[in-house]
Amino acid sequence: MTAIHLARPEDIDRLDTLVAAFHEEEGIALSPERRRAGLMPLLEGIPHGAAYLVGPSRAPIGYVIITFTWSVEYGGLDGFIDEIYMRPAVRGRGIAGEVMNALPASLAQQAGLRAIHLEVDKTNDQARRLYERMGFRERENYVIMSKRL
Amino acid sequence: MTAIHLARPEDIDRLDTLVAAFHEEEGIALSPERRRAGLMPLLEGIPHGAAYLVGPSRAPIGYVIITFTWSVEYGGLDGFIDEIYMRPAVRGRGIAGEVMNALPASLAQQAGLRAIHLEVDKTNDQARRLYERMGFRERENYVIMSKRL
Repeated sequence: MTAIHLARPEDIDRLDTLVAAFHEEEGIALSPERRRAGLMPLLEGIPHGAAYLVGPSRAPIGYVIITFTWSVEYGGLDGFIDEIYMRPAVRGRGIAGEVMNALPASLAQQAGLRAIHLEVDKTNDQARRLYERMGFRERENYVIMSKRL
Repeated sequence: MTAIHLARPEDIDRLDTLVAAFHEEEGIALSPERRRAGLMPLLEGIPHGAAYLVGPSRAPIGYVIITFTWSVEYGGLDGFIDEIYMRPAVRGRGIAGEVMNALPASLAQQAGLRAIHLEVDKTNDQARRLYERMGFRERENYVIMSKRL
């Protein structure tokens, strides 16, 4: 079982290095300042999300950020896998899948999480099949619309 | 300008009547107990969402539930219009649209909300066009996948 631990303010540099690598891979352009501004509140314990480091605390091999919201329909906390990343050197070993199973299950038990969601690229069939094997189902008839404020 | 006020615990009966009507219209089957369990924490001030009554406090004509989460990318609070409903008798007057513009704008100013999202039935062209005129844009290349815990 791979170690997963909640990231705290003292983990910011280790987390930020991984997040920067993920954003570079994904083409997400954020300045270092804006990236830290998006991460630090999660380490400081805001109720809207948490970051977890995967692997040894001093030399993590990946991270996952889960954000929390509320569902009237489920009558409880709802989670969203906002970002998940494993260093290229450790990929293909099923670690991300293990984390994506274990962490929501533990949050369900400890914090009453009722459901977990993620967003996937429609054209990424491999990822969609993987998530389906993990028990995720597509909300086929709906689209998300967004507006910046 | 239509009055919008934050629902508090003493508003539970007024809110619940409207939510029950919305769920019946939408075919959402929740027992009265489960529905209240999903609503009451929002009135009690949990940080994950809030319910607002539209119109006169004693005789509201509709409601909206906004849930809150965090966005690393936007570096701030993210909102989601979870449910919005107007009584049939007051429809067609643009009240829902007015609420959907005014409330996120006010939350942006007062609570630092960075973006607002909603989910729409892919086949409901009328709603999609309306939301587009209001400044919402579709996330076309992604699908949401969900797993109950």
